[in-house]
Amino acid sequence: MSRFDVIAFDADDTLWHNERLYREAQEKFKNLLAHYHSREWIAERLDATEMQNLQHFGYGIKSFALSMIETAVELTEGRITGQEIQAILEMTKNMLAADVQLVERVPETLARLAETYALMVITKGDLRDQETKITRSGLADFFSHVEIVSDKKSANYARVLKRHNIAPERFVMVGNSLRSDILPVLEIGATAIYIPHELTWTHEHADAPTDESRFFEIAQFGDLPDLFATLERD
Amino acid sequence: MSRFDVIAFDADDTLWHNERLYREAQEKFKNLLAHYHSREWIAERLDATEMQNLQHFGYGIKSFALSMIETAVELTEGRITGQEIQAILEMTKNMLAADVQLVERVPETLARLAETYALMVITKGDLRDQETKITRSGLADFFSHVEIVSDKKSANYARVLKRHNIAPERFVMVGNSLRSDILPVLEIGATAIYIPHELTWTHEHADAPTDESRFFEIAQFGDLPDLFATLERD
Repeated sequence: MSRFDVIAFDADDTLWHNERLYREAQEKFKNLLAHYHSREWIAERLDATEMQNLQHFGYGIKSFALSMIETAVELTEGRITGQEIQAILEMTKNMLAADVQLVERVPETLARLAETYALMVITKGDLRDQETKITRSGLADFFSHVEIVSDKKSANYARVLKRHNIAPERFVMVGNSLRSDILPVLEIGATAIYIPHELTWTHEHADAPTDESRFFEIAQFGDLPDLFATLERD
Repeated sequence: MSRFDVIAFDADDTLWHNERLYREAQEKFKNLLAHYHSREWIAERLDATEMQNLQHFGYGIKSFALSMIETAVELTEGRITGQEIQAILEMTKNMLAADVQLVERVPETLARLAETYALMVITKGDLRDQETKITRSGLADFFSHVEIVSDKKSANYARVLKRHNIAPERFVMVGNSLRSDILPVLEIGATAIYIPHELTWTHEHADAPTDESRFFEIAQFGDLPDLFATLERD
């Protein structure tokens, strides 16, 4: 018998690249406002506006767009032009329609893991955006369930496990965010596998757990089958 | 034994008033742009932009906000001011933070129905906005499940019923939108109860079904217990 029943995956920057889209948009945003302010100051104000607006808007591209617009108005003391606002709206639609770029070796790795475990997705952000990305990714058939949540705190994970009747000790979460995918999962007594992504939003940073027997870190997605083989032998 | 197991409720304009918030925002938006165009033309262009953006943005207040901003840029040929954009962002935050105004007799009616049936919410829109409204409404404890979906087509309902192992003939949906709450539910073989709301978004209009034994219409939420008593006697 396997040690685990269910492996759940974060989506953005675990299954497919996502933070790149935000970084590209931030660069364009800095270019757009470059004749008003320094690039560093623009980046700093955008970041501060995003953090402040999380309570109003939550996560996702539409929230990011509203924060870009708010920052543009603020930084230009209202002198922002309609064309510049239009450019931000265009960037937003392009982000929402962007091709889904899978992380290396994701499909074949999921196929191997699916032979032994039930696979799930647990992701946060815009409901519609996440749904269409799962469809466009071509990965939907690997997953028995897709859970799109508004936040990834331990209570959100506990609710998902309860809903699906999964015991924490038989559940593994895989993701690139220590803050959202790892720490809250360890907190409820489940296992967490951290796969760092070259780009991770600063808001998602946290210290890695120390002295925690249910925490594992690997370098890339394709290393998962070997790690599970080891865990099942222990 | 009861004829039904589960009653599911639409949220916006079924459990609490919602369309009023949009109508108020539209009025403010028309006032804001009144020195550029006629109120009728502003309303018409906003509506057209919203419809066109549904494919990009989906439903909800943040999507509506982005459409207001886009319409404002377009209608002013880019002459919209930063202050006017700021006013739209403020309206958006106020909409998201607005008090939840319950429809008349909702709590006591839910309490009576909960004696016999499992109650659910099935609503579409922003994940975070709908979650916080359910919390703020004070109604959360009546519901065994809350499903927030990106759209309300028959496939969305079929998925929810399958996930919860509910047979369509034992499921009833209650809502104010013929297009979203009634027709797709009848299509999957379940029962639907239509409670018209004085304000309903034009996008949600559809013709009422004729000659359909699983369709019922009542005037107000408080009429539900009597209707169920009749249905159980039949």
